[in-house]
Amino acid sequence: MTEKPEVISFAGGMPDPELFPLEEMKRVSVRVLEESGKQALQYATTEGFPPLRAKIAERMNRKFGTAVWAENVLITSGSQQGLDLTGKAFLNEGDAVLCESPSYLGAIQAFKTYQPRFIEVTTDDEGMNMEELRHILQTTERVKLIYAIPDFQNPTGRTWSATRRERLIRLANEFDVVVIEDNPYGELRFEGDMLPSVKSLDTEGRVIYLGTFSKTLCPGYRIGWVAADKAILSKYILLKQAADLQTSTISQREIDLYMATYNLDAGIERIKAVYKQRRDVMISALKREMPGVVRFTEPSGGLFTWVELPVHINARDVLVKCLEQNVAFVPGGSFYPNAGRENTLRLNYSNMDEVRIVEGIRRLADVLKENFLDPSENICNPNNAANR
Amino acid sequence: MTEKPEVISFAGGMPDPELFPLEEMKRVSVRVLEESGKQALQYATTEGFPPLRAKIAERMNRKFGTAVWAENVLITSGSQQGLDLTGKAFLNEGDAVLCESPSYLGAIQAFKTYQPRFIEVTTDDEGMNMEELRHILQTTERVKLIYAIPDFQNPTGRTWSATRRERLIRLANEFDVVVIEDNPYGELRFEGDMLPSVKSLDTEGRVIYLGTFSKTLCPGYRIGWVAADKAILSKYILLKQAADLQTSTISQREIDLYMATYNLDAGIERIKAVYKQRRDVMISALKREMPGVVRFTEPSGGLFTWVELPVHINARDVLVKCLEQNVAFVPGGSFYPNAGRENTLRLNYSNMDEVRIVEGIRRLADVLKENFLDPSENICNPNNAANR
Repeated sequence: MTEKPEVISFAGGMPDPELFPLEEMKRVSVRVLEESGKQALQYATTEGFPPLRAKIAERMNRKFGTAVWAENVLITSGSQQGLDLTGKAFLNEGDAVLCESPSYLGAIQAFKTYQPRFIEVTTDDEGMNMEELRHILQTTERVKLIYAIPDFQNPTGRTWSATRRERLIRLANEFDVVVIEDNPYGELRFEGDMLPSVKSLDTEGRVIYLGTFSKTLCPGYRIGWVAADKAILSKYILLKQAADLQTSTISQREIDLYMATYNLDAGIERIKAVYKQRRDVMISALKREMPGVVRFTEPSGGLFTWVELPVHINARDVLVKCLEQNVAFVPGGSFYPNAGRENTLRLNYSNMDEVRIVEGIRRLADVLKENFLDPSENICNPNNAANR
Repeated sequence: MTEKPEVISFAGGMPDPELFPLEEMKRVSVRVLEESGKQALQYATTEGFPPLRAKIAERMNRKFGTAVWAENVLITSGSQQGLDLTGKAFLNEGDAVLCESPSYLGAIQAFKTYQPRFIEVTTDDEGMNMEELRHILQTTERVKLIYAIPDFQNPTGRTWSATRRERLIRLANEFDVVVIEDNPYGELRFEGDMLPSVKSLDTEGRVIYLGTFSKTLCPGYRIGWVAADKAILSKYILLKQAADLQTSTISQREIDLYMATYNLDAGIERIKAVYKQRRDVMISALKREMPGVVRFTEPSGGLFTWVELPVHINARDVLVKCLEQNVAFVPGGSFYPNAGRENTLRLNYSNMDEVRIVEGIRRLADVLKENFLDPSENICNPNNAANR
């Protein structure tokens, strides 16, 4: 449905393909086959291509203040595989996973295969509520993982404060729990300073960091990674070997050669400039079009904003009406592992141009005003009046 | 160890990289990026690239007499992922998996993650012993899978007879059990007629077929597939989505364009000609060098032969001595899921040239004669005397 060209889709989480480095990848793929074709098309080690692992470690240390080496990095088939291997490594039926509320649907699906209990921790604009997290850790048996997306979270676009990050790692240390830091969007910061990654605060080797090139380069190669303490990583390596032997040799070598030849940082700057503009356009349109009872986040990076409707409105019903107007989004209920708040929805702004963003938000607002909001709710937020 | 250039390695199961179509893949990778770069580097559906799924279905029907369609095919990250998804889909702790004895190490590892019981079925040159299989099916609870590699099995090189294939499917029907037909080597037949695939005999949608391009094209892209009844496949698709979202978009499109542009069959003929010659050289050398107490299979296709030593010899000890002579192989014990017959070993002949094969077998025979065989055993097989 969302692939029809006439549909304005705020669903999905796709990067804009106009930003893919096609010419560069063409040159890279020829060079890889010319310079190391026999190795590139052959089996290789489960851990991944050593020069790529080294580049990833160096980049993490430079961007996110970590202290990892190539030997701490396992190349995975997208960071989704990192999530699956995490479930395999840590979760048995009935074990507890603590996560933000709401959380990333793909992580919920990956973990669900291993039949854990999900315990959602109330989350606000600063991150998880730390008093609640402490209480849960004190009163819950078999807590195996705390799963978090501290930067520009999927689905809410929220970013954890530095204080919450520090308190998270202190609590994890105190209660001896593993933390999964899933960071696909961290490099896509539009403004403000980078905050310390949770992994950079880790002094006990208990944070497992998941990364990916899907949002900073392109998703089609399916190259992600797990960065962890060596003892933990060796477990992931064994599970990875049983799961698919290794990630594509040639894709790893292509991304490695791209990083050696071109400037990944410059490519990310181009991506950020485009997405920032789209974020601005979407937030402006939301402020202009939405009545005051509709709330939304204002992300400072990443791909998503999160909308909360009055509690009596079910976003799935809104979606049905919006699809009639050729507008799509993801209703928020499915981002809550234990039955959700159905008055929420996720909007992606990375893959639609500005004209379509403005038009799509206008149609969404019209659908809400005409079909779902009471007359009394149909009042524009006075704070936003200036934007009208 | 086996990667040192001076080592004659009969370990591993690597194809010969000299046979990889480097020039063709170079042209293909440029064309994919020129003609559909934005799609090739983007996310895509979990099921896989539809034209590739259609080509695989057509090829299976033509080569292996199956009756499958594109919609029966799920593209996986190598056929190893098909094994892992199989374990995920069917196995809970304590469930029974019936397999050949010995069986493929990678399958044992993939299934082991899900903690089943392995029940090995005695296997001879015709395949599993069907009386024993029937007895096991009659007397065993929670049998979830029969796992078999009917063509040029890894590790033994053996091929099931047509009769055993028919009896397997009749027993599977009678006892309502799923059969996994793992067929990475089936197209690498050096002589004789193709036998009907188990999937081609399946009238009840209970055979799940695993395929791969690793041995017919090259392993580096990690492209395999699962072909199954639609209802079963939909379960695999959900599990695949949770495991890694999808297999590399660009790799799928590259292999699809290779198949559309070049002649995969002609490439396979070249591979077969080389491997057949190496098989001949290895079998001749074994006949010439090995005492009569050493037995080995004579495969009519695939990558491996299987050696049985006198029962008092442990192949792990032989390996230690052989490595001193720069010769490597895989001791057979690990191919038995329930503690193995340690007097066995697997020899791969696909990735060493003829001179090295002759030299390696000579060294292996010398190690056996000088260190492990009693004088009374050190007699050449009279049947092989003509080869001396």
